[in-house]
Amino acid sequence: MVDLRSDTVTRPTPGMLAAMSSADVGDDVYGEDPAVNALEAEAAALFGKEAAVFTPTGSMANQIGLQLLVRPGEELLADVKAHVVNFEMGAAAALGGISTRTWAGPNGRIDADQVEPLINRPNPYVTVTRAIAVENTHNIGGGTVQPVEELRRLKDLADAYGLGLHLDGARIWNAHAATGTPFAEYGRLFDTVSVCLSKGLGAPVGSLLITDAERAQRARVIRKRLGGGMRQAGFLAAAGSYALANHIDRLAEDHARAQHLARSLEPFGICDAAQVETNIVLVRIPEIAKVAAAAADQGVKISVLGADWGRMLTHLDVDDAGIEHAVKVLGTLLGK
Amino acid sequence: MVDLRSDTVTRPTPGMLAAMSSADVGDDVYGEDPAVNALEAEAAALFGKEAAVFTPTGSMANQIGLQLLVRPGEELLADVKAHVVNFEMGAAAALGGISTRTWAGPNGRIDADQVEPLINRPNPYVTVTRAIAVENTHNIGGGTVQPVEELRRLKDLADAYGLGLHLDGARIWNAHAATGTPFAEYGRLFDTVSVCLSKGLGAPVGSLLITDAERAQRARVIRKRLGGGMRQAGFLAAAGSYALANHIDRLAEDHARAQHLARSLEPFGICDAAQVETNIVLVRIPEIAKVAAAAADQGVKISVLGADWGRMLTHLDVDDAGIEHAVKVLGTLLGK
Amino acid sequence: MVDLRSDTVTRPTPGMLAAMSSADVGDDVYGEDPAVNALEAEAAALFGKEAAVFTPTGSMANQIGLQLLVRPGEELLADVKAHVVNFEMGAAAALGGISTRTWAGPNGRIDADQVEPLINRPNPYVTVTRAIAVENTHNIGGGTVQPVEELRRLKDLADAYGLGLHLDGARIWNAHAATGTPFAEYGRLFDTVSVCLSKGLGAPVGSLLITDAERAQRARVIRKRLGGGMRQAGFLAAAGSYALANHIDRLAEDHARAQHLARSLEPFGICDAAQVETNIVLVRIPEIAKVAAAAADQGVKISVLGADWGRMLTHLDVDDAGIEHAVKVLGTLLGK
Amino acid sequence: MVDLRSDTVTRPTPGMLAAMSSADVGDDVYGEDPAVNALEAEAAALFGKEAAVFTPTGSMANQIGLQLLVRPGEELLADVKAHVVNFEMGAAAALGGISTRTWAGPNGRIDADQVEPLINRPNPYVTVTRAIAVENTHNIGGGTVQPVEELRRLKDLADAYGLGLHLDGARIWNAHAATGTPFAEYGRLFDTVSVCLSKGLGAPVGSLLITDAERAQRARVIRKRLGGGMRQAGFLAAAGSYALANHIDRLAEDHARAQHLARSLEPFGICDAAQVETNIVLVRIPEIAKVAAAAADQGVKISVLGADWGRMLTHLDVDDAGIEHAVKVLGTLLGK
Repeated sequence: MVDLRSDTVTRPTPGMLAAMSSADVGDDVYGEDPAVNALEAEAAALFGKEAAVFTPTGSMANQIGLQLLVRPGEELLADVKAHVVNFEMGAAAALGGISTRTWAGPNGRIDADQVEPLINRPNPYVTVTRAIAVENTHNIGGGTVQPVEELRRLKDLADAYGLGLHLDGARIWNAHAATGTPFAEYGRLFDTVSVCLSKGLGAPVGSLLITDAERAQRARVIRKRLGGGMRQAGFLAAAGSYALANHIDRLAEDHARAQHLARSLEPFGICDAAQVETNIVLVRIPEIAKVAAAAADQGVKISVLGADWGRMLTHLDVDDAGIEHAVKVLGTLLGK
Repeated sequence: MVDLRSDTVTRPTPGMLAAMSSADVGDDVYGEDPAVNALEAEAAALFGKEAAVFTPTGSMANQIGLQLLVRPGEELLADVKAHVVNFEMGAAAALGGISTRTWAGPNGRIDADQVEPLINRPNPYVTVTRAIAVENTHNIGGGTVQPVEELRRLKDLADAYGLGLHLDGARIWNAHAATGTPFAEYGRLFDTVSVCLSKGLGAPVGSLLITDAERAQRARVIRKRLGGGMRQAGFLAAAGSYALANHIDRLAEDHARAQHLARSLEPFGICDAAQVETNIVLVRIPEIAKVAAAAADQGVKISVLGADWGRMLTHLDVDDAGIEHAVKVLGTLLGK
Repeated sequence: MVDLRSDTVTRPTPGMLAAMSSADVGDDVYGEDPAVNALEAEAAALFGKEAAVFTPTGSMANQIGLQLLVRPGEELLADVKAHVVNFEMGAAAALGGISTRTWAGPNGRIDADQVEPLINRPNPYVTVTRAIAVENTHNIGGGTVQPVEELRRLKDLADAYGLGLHLDGARIWNAHAATGTPFAEYGRLFDTVSVCLSKGLGAPVGSLLITDAERAQRARVIRKRLGGGMRQAGFLAAAGSYALANHIDRLAEDHARAQHLARSLEPFGICDAAQVETNIVLVRIPEIAKVAAAAADQGVKISVLGADWGRMLTHLDVDDAGIEHAVKVLGTLLGK
Repeated sequence: MVDLRSDTVTRPTPGMLAAMSSADVGDDVYGEDPAVNALEAEAAALFGKEAAVFTPTGSMANQIGLQLLVRPGEELLADVKAHVVNFEMGAAAALGGISTRTWAGPNGRIDADQVEPLINRPNPYVTVTRAIAVENTHNIGGGTVQPVEELRRLKDLADAYGLGLHLDGARIWNAHAATGTPFAEYGRLFDTVSVCLSKGLGAPVGSLLITDAERAQRARVIRKRLGGGMRQAGFLAAAGSYALANHIDRLAEDHARAQHLARSLEPFGICDAAQVETNIVLVRIPEIAKVAAAAADQGVKISVLGADWGRMLTHLDVDDAGIEHAVKVLGTLLGK
């Protein structure tokens, strides 16, 4: 079985499992879980920030970040396919009262010039723009890496207008792996950064919101309100620390396999390998639901996103043999 | 003094004032204000709908309409310059928990083909799209009229996807005046329609949400929650009934004056008369704030929307002499 | 017809109507309505506060006041029968995210000793108490007047804990008429004060939120978000100014009539005249819905609040003859 | 070190840790985690309900339950010291728009006669009551057990008025241990039940919302919105299953130790052993913060709840020797 639906499906490696089993834990609601405290310190240091807050999911880390930057009735700008507006069940509006407007960036790629005209400056007659969200890499865009030069232009724009910047960095690990941009540079550019430990890094559960000390304190209150104040979360945090130490460098392998997969499928006219920058391969296949069902019967799972498009992701639990198997099964189904 | 900032600045005519003074009123929270009941029945009939609900403002009528169509955590699609997302202080999100995504239509003009790719169909992983909002005429677009053929295509789209349609018809009177499209046709195409009595129609205060009977009942509960359950509102409603009876046909005059104004200012390179379809003239003037201040000193008020753009509107309280005066003052200031 | 259901049912007097018709109005969203500005200044002065903001209803004035004092996820304390939690459709929670806990005061009368144990002091594990709401006079309590000495004790309590104090003063006019306490004393004790012009004072529509200058500015933003930013609201404001000038002193008449009504009905065992402090008479009548229906057939309207209890209010449109008629009709129906 | 602050501080036993390490996990967002699915089925069966949904915390399970029963702008009734209103950071209002009113039950003990008069029946002028929340055992009440006869009376009341019933059963295990009432009886009486695995049962992280199949489906959407859709949560769920199988029966030991602790401290006049029904001992100690700090220096941690009151809890990590040590240390500090 090769599961290419998402990089969230990974199971812990033996090393990670050993780290979990031997974790030194405590009650994190009281701030007394050593493993959680260690992970938070490691993540903050990695991004050159003051503090980090452990959360059960990336959605919660994102929503806490947004609530820290934008108050009810104020506005967040994001791209039209952003995870924070499309895949978090309307949480920004429903839980934070945050108004959103969106622009259409090609493959989710940000362009500061496209963003600037949208900004509503403070006056008593408008929904005031307070922050901009960036997703890096961009999931629905196809694992798109945001060029760091453009992020710097966006930072200049945000500074000029007094706006906050949130990074949905669920897959920032992949952006780093693809470009070598230091994590601290991302930390410098953004006010709040969410990172996910259970996607490419292979931890079972957990994300972090990384920010300054004052915001981190408020983040803990918001986290508790959202129902994210876990007790002996150190078992999860230990997996996260293990992942930070051991699973970042290996992401280049996932990227190479995604390239190989895309190049192998390109002859079928369903994808463009030149667009594959990280571990995500978007495909256009007519009646993809049928193809996906047939592939699953032969042990290859892919993700269906619409009537004729879908997604394959490489990750820790996919090896070269798995990719070959997927190529063979899909090739047969696509009729060549 | 010629006030071209907005068509909201009109004062009641003697006839309207007489209608107000002689209104037969009661307690509308109990449903017992005859003048309110009459206005609601007139508006519902005009649009071929079952019911209407009187509100203190167009913003409230819009927000009630949106809350009727979209629940917290669900999604509304609207154009990026829509009043409902830009000028109602984030109410859809803050009060209704409604998530929004936006697209950029030229001059706010809707195009069903631009909307369709945005729709998130129901599944347990996405922010489900539930409704689309249309503004007609479009304020920031420059009084743009939405072509009825395109609205019909949008209705087909909405039906195909099971989406609700809300019309922000604050200036639907002007769209009707410009095209002759019957109000009942708008009523047929949209599930909820807001109309404003205090813009082109010249009433002092008041809007209506026009919809079916079941939604109207729920609308009264939402209105009360928002603080819109007024008592002897019949004084305002009587002005509204007078406006419906007397001030719709005359809107063609406002449109003609806006055309004349635009053509007179076109030589200065600040506007495009061909784009003026109703009573709004958008202008591009460098450092417009200074020009507006100087014009105000000479009795001509215009609206500043940004660093180099602004807006002039014709209405009930602007006559031919006012337009001539405005042209003269602005012409002098613009240096020709 | 004698309508004792509420003091909201009054229709303007000829003098008030004349004031409305001759009002000097403008666009209040731009802050340019002279009649609104005058009323706001008069109300602020009366209560010794810096500013006032005109709203379409008392519910909106209350909810703005609460949102100014309590942020989403924080807590307001109020009595269990308070209008702000029972009769404003859950607005504090639904629109402001305000958590509420309540205590049971006899007849809605406040007792600082009952309130103090409820206060949750700030820490990162609790819903932090931020404000207390007081209703004076208390509607469902039966027009109960809050003793000013107790309000001063509550103010000391609020100061000691750093809490805000909101006065739901929809009928503060009646409390003043009953006790002579200066309005400025209420203004001194409370951070935000809502007053209603369309109850005992007899104006058709309108309330005010009275507070300091900084909060008033924020109040205008919240008012616009709620859909309360009206245009030529001066017609309503003029009625309000007339009411402030002419209808406060006469409230003693309403109180005397309520006393007379209660004493006349006391022999039927349905009310206690000693409890009637202002213009509200609470009655206990088995199967009151039937009695109310029968009374209405004979031109006497009363309000049904539950299976066996109801309410009668005296007001501007009820004279001595009306009271006599009501006593006669109800007496007959109650079987003596 | 004896930590009596809370029963949340427990660390997994070797047996539980072994169960965690050998858990068969998958992606629970896709419904594919075998360990999570097993735990959900076990919990549902235990309470005689159709379904259960695993959540990271008891707060999230509670808030999902409340949102399932009460819509924004509607009302929940709860006792004045309930966890759902006091210790979940105002989530019901802030995230669910749920209005709350509260009554004061002695030691948090519910009395249907106290609840009934609070109910607001549906009409378009009131905040409609939709549900009642019960906490069993009651935390701040002192581990109070709700008598099942009274719960049945409350169920009759709820049925008569068409209200939902939510059980905050974070410590329902203790209520069961104290009374023998079958879990299925609690399941029968309540529409939604939250239970916590990380308090008395000793699991590190996790709670469940137990309800019918239709509500469980909606619960998963709300859980995802709140940021509770974890991936390989099976590690946590396996601990939960182990706790259900092994740690319920032993709660009687905790109760016996709490009794012993209370009786030992009673002579100091700080508690009433007759009030201790389960594993919580409330104490009244002047300047308790000082006493708690001094006790901590000698290895005994207790919880400070107010200026002069606090709490001690027995749990899996407290044995007889720990109790003796606590009694000795506290006895010395209390000066006898």
